[in-house]
Amino acid sequence: MKTNVDCIPCFTRHALEAARTVGLDEARTVLLMNDVLKMLQSLNWSEPPPVMARDIHRLIKKRIENPDPFEQHKRQSTKDALKHLPKIRDCVAKSDNPFATAVRFAIAGNAIDLGAKTAHEINISHIFQTALDTPVDESAIGHLEQRVQNAQRILFLADNAGEIVFDIPLLDLIGKQKLTVAVRGDAVINDATMDDAERAGIKGQFNTVSNGSDTPGTWLSDCSIDFKRIFKHSDLIIAKGQGNYETLNDASQNIFFLFKAKCKVICADAGVPLNSFAIILSEIAKSQIT
Amino acid sequence: MKTNVDCIPCFTRHALEAARTVGLDEARTVLLMNDVLKMLQSLNWSEPPPVMARDIHRLIKKRIENPDPFEQHKRQSTKDALKHLPKIRDCVAKSDNPFATAVRFAIAGNAIDLGAKTAHEINISHIFQTALDTPVDESAIGHLEQRVQNAQRILFLADNAGEIVFDIPLLDLIGKQKLTVAVRGDAVINDATMDDAERAGIKGQFNTVSNGSDTPGTWLSDCSIDFKRIFKHSDLIIAKGQGNYETLNDASQNIFFLFKAKCKVICADAGVPLNSFAIILSEIAKSQIT
Repeated sequence: MKTNVDCIPCFTRHALEAARTVGLDEARTVLLMNDVLKMLQSLNWSEPPPVMARDIHRLIKKRIENPDPFEQHKRQSTKDALKHLPKIRDCVAKSDNPFATAVRFAIAGNAIDLGAKTAHEINISHIFQTALDTPVDESAIGHLEQRVQNAQRILFLADNAGEIVFDIPLLDLIGKQKLTVAVRGDAVINDATMDDAERAGIKGQFNTVSNGSDTPGTWLSDCSIDFKRIFKHSDLIIAKGQGNYETLNDASQNIFFLFKAKCKVICADAGVPLNSFAIILSEIAKSQIT
Repeated sequence: MKTNVDCIPCFTRHALEAARTVGLDEARTVLLMNDVLKMLQSLNWSEPPPVMARDIHRLIKKRIENPDPFEQHKRQSTKDALKHLPKIRDCVAKSDNPFATAVRFAIAGNAIDLGAKTAHEINISHIFQTALDTPVDESAIGHLEQRVQNAQRILFLADNAGEIVFDIPLLDLIGKQKLTVAVRGDAVINDATMDDAERAGIKGQFNTVSNGSDTPGTWLSDCSIDFKRIFKHSDLIIAKGQGNYETLNDASQNIFFLFKAKCKVICADAGVPLNSFAIILSEIAKSQIT
């Protein structure tokens, strides 16, 4: 999907949060913000928001001389989420429908998104409750479960650090034999990289690959040849988070997008209400419903 | 207080909200946003945020060819707030401490602020509850009550449309004899003008004056000579909202600032927590505490 001028406030907020997080002094923060404002005037609005975010975050990382400004936040979210993991696993195991409950937790975890929210708006304890309380499209979950059972090669496109811990019960249910988990190739916002997957215990348990890109989404022209091969040969793709939806919503592939709808731009495109748990099927995924 | 680069996301959001509210087409919205981004690079960061907001909103109003983009929002907030007024009055009358309860409602009403929040984040029914639940500095309210009793000429600097309805029980307790209510001289964001004061029933009941300015605060160099005379000769000023705090926090006058702290920039400057009910005394007001 195309970027919208409504994304501008978030792009400027990202730059500020990065500067504040690493303790950049005021004079350099003003210079950074001026550079970001300049860049926003010259970006290509026909590309998806994560592609513009990639360019803005490259500028931010260069100006603040830090390749991973949100590293501490990512470590802390992972730590906090891991504390909840036994309770989440227990909840999934005791549920009447473990697959649906695991999907609920995976979507709820997508609240840990510094692309759409400020750090102080993210409350991991609250996420646990929303997982159980928020309405969700049960029939779409049923389709996904059936597709998971029938698929041979499933690609799971992970989203953010901390969030990926909430994905673990779903990954467990899919099973390691037919599953590949993909993370970002380089740090951008709080998106999960291989280091974050390792801290979450995912790398040791599942076949985990880097997509080779620093875009906070899955922008294929940016991704490595190896990743593109896996992508092409997967018969089911589960794509977590807004960034993956924004970059892949037009892809000719069998994709189930799972995310929490956190901004009006996404809501308008996907036709879902704000703060809802979204399960969106790509055109091909829709056409396969019997 | 000086503007901070942290204000940039809000400034860009104002422009977008104005454009979306009046239904500006996409091409003209992109042009508007580019103009706003350009202006943000050339603003004088040593002035308070409302002075920068004034310039940005002048640009917005010119580009979208509408002198009051948020007029409908202001009318609706006034209407909605007026529905709650009998309940608020009743609550104040039955309270153990009517003055303190009236101050609580006045501060709670400051949530109706499109400068700090988006329209969909404002919920007037919720405001009623926060008025009663949110902790507040009771001793500061005691000082204010005493000062109100002793003062001869009280100036009440109103803030936003809708919010001013929540001020009415406090204005009633102060009494019309020694009170002047000031509103903005021209429309900016959802700040209350004379038209809004009329719709709220304030203009008919209290001596109400325009400050002669289109700054979303009280920037004296912008205000009319008449207003400045009233300001100078008031022995107590009650200033509502963040904008009035931002423009007057250094003024040499006896001022009680009442606002809901809605953004981190204000919180850092005033030393109050986010979402708290703030009662801040100017240096002169502090020095008069016996």
